[in-house]
Amino acid sequence: MKIIHLLSSILLFLLLANCTKAEDGYRLWLRYDKLTNAQLLEKYKTSFSSIVATGNSETITVLKEELTKGLSGLLGQQIVISGKSEMQGSLIIGTPQSSSIINSLKLGAELKIIGNEGYLLFTTLINNKKATIITANTDIGLLYGTFHLLRLVQTQKDISDLDFTNSPKVQHRLLNHWDNLNRTVERGYAGFSIWEWHTLPDYISTRYKDYARANASIGINGTVLTNVNADALILTSEYLEKVAALANVFRPYGIKVYLTARFSAPIEIGGLKTADPLDSAVISWWNKKAEEIYKYIPDFGGFLVKANSEGQPGPQDYKRTHAEGANLLATSVEPHGGIVMWRAFVYSNEQPDDRAKQAYSEFVPLDGKFKKNVIIQVKNGAIDFQPREPFHPLFGAMPNTPLMMEFQVTQEYLGQGIHLVYLAPLYKECYHSDTYSKDKESTVAKVIDGALHSYSYTAVAGVSNIGDDRNWCGHPMAQSNWYTLGRQAWDPYSSPEEIANDWIRMTFSNDANIIDPMLNIMMGSREACVNYMTPIGLHHQMAWHHHYGPGPWIKDKPRDDWTSMYYSKASENGIGFDRTKTGSNAINQYFPPVAEMYGTIASCPENVLLWFHHLPWDYKMKSGHTLWDELCYKYYSGVDSVKVMQAKWISLQGKIDHERFEHVKSLLNIQVRDAIEWRNACILYFQTFSKMPIPEGLEKPGQTLEYYMNIDRQFLPGS
Amino acid sequence: MKIIHLLSSILLFLLLANCTKAEDGYRLWLRYDKLTNAQLLEKYKTSFSSIVATGNSETITVLKEELTKGLSGLLGQQIVISGKSEMQGSLIIGTPQSSSIINSLKLGAELKIIGNEGYLLFTTLINNKKATIITANTDIGLLYGTFHLLRLVQTQKDISDLDFTNSPKVQHRLLNHWDNLNRTVERGYAGFSIWEWHTLPDYISTRYKDYARANASIGINGTVLTNVNADALILTSEYLEKVAALANVFRPYGIKVYLTARFSAPIEIGGLKTADPLDSAVISWWNKKAEEIYKYIPDFGGFLVKANSEGQPGPQDYKRTHAEGANLLATSVEPHGGIVMWRAFVYSNEQPDDRAKQAYSEFVPLDGKFKKNVIIQVKNGAIDFQPREPFHPLFGAMPNTPLMMEFQVTQEYLGQGIHLVYLAPLYKECYHSDTYSKDKESTVAKVIDGALHSYSYTAVAGVSNIGDDRNWCGHPMAQSNWYTLGRQAWDPYSSPEEIANDWIRMTFSNDANIIDPMLNIMMGSREACVNYMTPIGLHHQMAWHHHYGPGPWIKDKPRDDWTSMYYSKASENGIGFDRTKTGSNAINQYFPPVAEMYGTIASCPENVLLWFHHLPWDYKMKSGHTLWDELCYKYYSGVDSVKVMQAKWISLQGKIDHERFEHVKSLLNIQVRDAIEWRNACILYFQTFSKMPIPEGLEKPGQTLEYYMNIDRQFLPGS
Repeated sequence: MKIIHLLSSILLFLLLANCTKAEDGYRLWLRYDKLTNAQLLEKYKTSFSSIVATGNSETITVLKEELTKGLSGLLGQQIVISGKSEMQGSLIIGTPQSSSIINSLKLGAELKIIGNEGYLLFTTLINNKKATIITANTDIGLLYGTFHLLRLVQTQKDISDLDFTNSPKVQHRLLNHWDNLNRTVERGYAGFSIWEWHTLPDYISTRYKDYARANASIGINGTVLTNVNADALILTSEYLEKVAALANVFRPYGIKVYLTARFSAPIEIGGLKTADPLDSAVISWWNKKAEEIYKYIPDFGGFLVKANSEGQPGPQDYKRTHAEGANLLATSVEPHGGIVMWRAFVYSNEQPDDRAKQAYSEFVPLDGKFKKNVIIQVKNGAIDFQPREPFHPLFGAMPNTPLMMEFQVTQEYLGQGIHLVYLAPLYKECYHSDTYSKDKESTVAKVIDGALHSYSYTAVAGVSNIGDDRNWCGHPMAQSNWYTLGRQAWDPYSSPEEIANDWIRMTFSNDANIIDPMLNIMMGSREACVNYMTPIGLHHQMAWHHHYGPGPWIKDKPRDDWTSMYYSKASENGIGFDRTKTGSNAINQYFPPVAEMYGTIASCPENVLLWFHHLPWDYKMKSGHTLWDELCYKYYSGVDSVKVMQAKWISLQGKIDHERFEHVKSLLNIQVRDAIEWRNACILYFQTFSKMPIPEGLEKPGQTLEYYMNIDRQFLPGS
Repeated sequence: MKIIHLLSSILLFLLLANCTKAEDGYRLWLRYDKLTNAQLLEKYKTSFSSIVATGNSETITVLKEELTKGLSGLLGQQIVISGKSEMQGSLIIGTPQSSSIINSLKLGAELKIIGNEGYLLFTTLINNKKATIITANTDIGLLYGTFHLLRLVQTQKDISDLDFTNSPKVQHRLLNHWDNLNRTVERGYAGFSIWEWHTLPDYISTRYKDYARANASIGINGTVLTNVNADALILTSEYLEKVAALANVFRPYGIKVYLTARFSAPIEIGGLKTADPLDSAVISWWNKKAEEIYKYIPDFGGFLVKANSEGQPGPQDYKRTHAEGANLLATSVEPHGGIVMWRAFVYSNEQPDDRAKQAYSEFVPLDGKFKKNVIIQVKNGAIDFQPREPFHPLFGAMPNTPLMMEFQVTQEYLGQGIHLVYLAPLYKECYHSDTYSKDKESTVAKVIDGALHSYSYTAVAGVSNIGDDRNWCGHPMAQSNWYTLGRQAWDPYSSPEEIANDWIRMTFSNDANIIDPMLNIMMGSREACVNYMTPIGLHHQMAWHHHYGPGPWIKDKPRDDWTSMYYSKASENGIGFDRTKTGSNAINQYFPPVAEMYGTIASCPENVLLWFHHLPWDYKMKSGHTLWDELCYKYYSGVDSVKVMQAKWISLQGKIDHERFEHVKSLLNIQVRDAIEWRNACILYFQTFSKMPIPEGLEKPGQTLEYYMNIDRQFLPGS
């Protein structure tokens, strides 16, 4: 009786102590709540009956912290990690240098292949007793292995017979924060920047460490703190001191900091008259600046640069090439082991050529002219983070210059902070695209992981969706995109579905009644977004002063290539951007088999058809429908998919916590309305050209085109 | 043994469930953690053994929620509130209408004097058993009484023999949010606006309700959602729908919403050619707009207007008076019971007269010309929220027009988000100032609460320091300023020290070892700030493009009255603004006894001496020091006080939670540095005029004046 009373008190106390409120999303996928499967719990308790972790680094300290926090939470009992009695360990963590037991296992060959960040996670007999071993060449490897083991427990996997050999396929796995020094975030939909510059270096917010934990748990090992539209002030000593404070928090978690370098910084903060990359004073200024930076941050990662793009200064201001510009900065950080990530996202207003072609045209001639520590950062597609784009033609086309991937995690063109869109399928689609640069199976993934051209540096970056919203990413489900960015950077060949499954289990529940509908929602969400926004290869149909709602009618603006009509080429004759020989011939930038596939109407995948071809409204699609009808069906199916997502979400009521349930439900309400707006606005507008009816059986738009054209959203976040 | 095991599990689980992390400040002063005093706990449990709350309104629902949450937390056991068995109640809450027991107590006379928001909270015998009674004329009164009772428990007071008759002295107790529609906050130092306009009305953040709870707990009954530098868009139907959603959340807590009205709205969103208040189309537009607003929000509070001030449009654009402008809006909301708060913060660049005089000069001639539902909102002082200002001469000078108080809670001129400054003593200083408008004891408080001139409307507003930072106010201690604003608006005569004591107990601990040092820190903090920023009546010595750091050297700007030299009048002859007959004669705006006191050097309080008098550097102060030496001593004592605050804070290490301890500690580090910068910058600058040495025994500034003048802060929050 007393115990029952006590138990009810516990339950109550937990309630009262506001623990039910803890589902505000702050804990991300590292929630570590107690497992409810009693049988499994017993098995895990045995596996973790005695834990030994050897080593003395800061990384080992945070590893122990994480393991204690994680296992104590998951198992619901105090976990103690001892440095002693290695022989008794049921879980032994250490390098061959720090652990004599592990040293005695003679793992030299296995360890050799996993590099500096990989780990072995396996079950073996120690002293005739079963033990789980995590070992690596470095303490960071051990930390990654520990997070892997925690994930196995969080997702309720059998851990009685493990045998993992795991190492990242890509060296540099980074977040790019488009965060301004005034704490606004360009294309940020989750509040202010998490970097509280004003109170750094004095005040170290607990967020900084939790940010590092989350990143380390998914293998992210670098962060660019500042916006690519850069402010030179970040390179002054006042700010470097603040950056150093962040670097100190991140270091134990294997995360390096990088900064964006404003090309004209020598003028703005250096007092020079020029930023010409061949000017000796400029060269000397950057070299000294790099020295200064490395005094503050000895393991500083390097620079990310947006130059001569959308108004940013760059080497072309002095009639120098991107290579000359990049090499200037690369020289400055080279002695310190730094790298330069130079963005290929360039296009010119004065250039009449198809915007999709310009990066290729500018960069391919420079192949091989960059210093060894320069990586060219290429967006996944040639336009700009559209719901669907064919892969960027640069991939495969620069065998002598490392190319890295830039994905967008923040959903600039995919419903921003409001729409539920799981991006892993988009990332996979790009990774799996075959460039044919060296015969078949020359996938983008093989370009990115260096396999194809033996790049000495490999990297993947994701433009962050993180802000100071309590749940980090604004939309509770958008955390999955941060999660998958890391997982797919570690292994570009991994499965979006498996990653989503892990994320759901860690973030919500191991209950199949929750996993199944949620997985279903997530896996179809990106295609739904493509369909209600820009199906069949349409692109950049977003409204003018933000990229949230529809604006297919946008034309006659100062920059033609910032208008929707530039991309749709909709007219009475048809719709689509002819990028074949009869048009801009952008297909010619692809290797022949790809150019052939995209360039031929019959072989061009219909989901990018209007990206490459201008077709008449009555063109017959594979379905037998006319292009117009197919377009309509796609738009309607996009809306229908969101309604199904909504219904599935509502089925989760009472199964997951109230706070996140209601939050996502509210946002799905908006998403359904938005999807209908997208569908109706686009169909009504394109109908003014096609002059064809909406197919029978589809409900007619309830509003006129004028109504949709008059929607004028103000004060959207992130714009 | 089992129980011990269980108990340790509980403790652990609590730890692991992240409850230790709950000290992020989000819960404000409504933490409701279990009381640790076992004896007291038992007594309270008896008092709350049976709780009855009658009534069926939404307010009663939230009252029950709050009481359940509060008492369950504080007592550490499930509290059930029943609607039945009134006779058994140890705590009975209801109005005479809803409760037959309370009705039987025949409290008519007592209830008559407490009005619509007051309450009775007392102990009596019911059925020969001791019972606590909360009663009122309205359910809102009951809610206020309930929060009072909760506060007594939170602060561990004896509740066995209560006898409170409590009602607010001021009718309208409001927060003013200077929040823009893009979610930036003017003079906001705690992140973005908490109003998530983009996702309203669909998504109702849990913050909205917690905001309402916090406000109701301190008696705040109105909130102006938008910046006084207003955007007319808030008055469009799109936004009114969002405002209505917030009003629905706030209504059960007795909180009305108000909006700022941009005077030119009829042009901007109404399509009219003019906003002339005497134009019939304009009158009709506002009347219709008010009707529309009240359709969305039936209990809409009214408008707050900043007109013809700092570039805002207003009636003077059409050669109309403030009264004509205010009456236009007052007419529109009058049929619906709304009010108009019209700000007196006006001054003109073209007006050569002392800025401190202009509000009085413009408004006093209009006394009695405003409609009955207009209240003139007057800042506490005639300049602008300085660390210390004499009370505004308007108070007492408009007997026929209700005047209300505008305090600033956000610390625009008092160290913003960084400095620890408890503002209650500042508010009290103003409230207690004697205007002598009707003989002695005609205090500002008596103007504000209507006692002096029998105002039909009374109000106090505080410019909010709330943002979406997790802890609401940025600085953990700044929550106390929100708290005291409400308490001192409810009762302008209340004691800053008692309020601080309550706040500390509710927010941190009932332990005297924590209360004493914290109280000491808080109570001295405002005077410390005055001393290191602007002692002896100096004012507006802040830097140019923000108001954070020192800038006594600011001069030669487009607006003279935005410069520091305009206010200090520092020269080789001395320092201070002569506002006597030989100067601007601003003292003449005060009633004779006050004018006499301030205008005579000998009787002028030294803490505002340089506000009213220009004095030579060798003027002899009451201490015997020269003015110059005294100025130095004050600046140094300001710094010394902050160092003492810092030492006292450090003594709390280990006694309060780590997270808030470290946060405040970091900010105090910055505050000490800032105070030294203020001191050195001001003394070195003024020394260029006084040409006198810093008194012996005071440490010499470590940097030159040039060093301080070159500090150029960028990207400060809120500016």
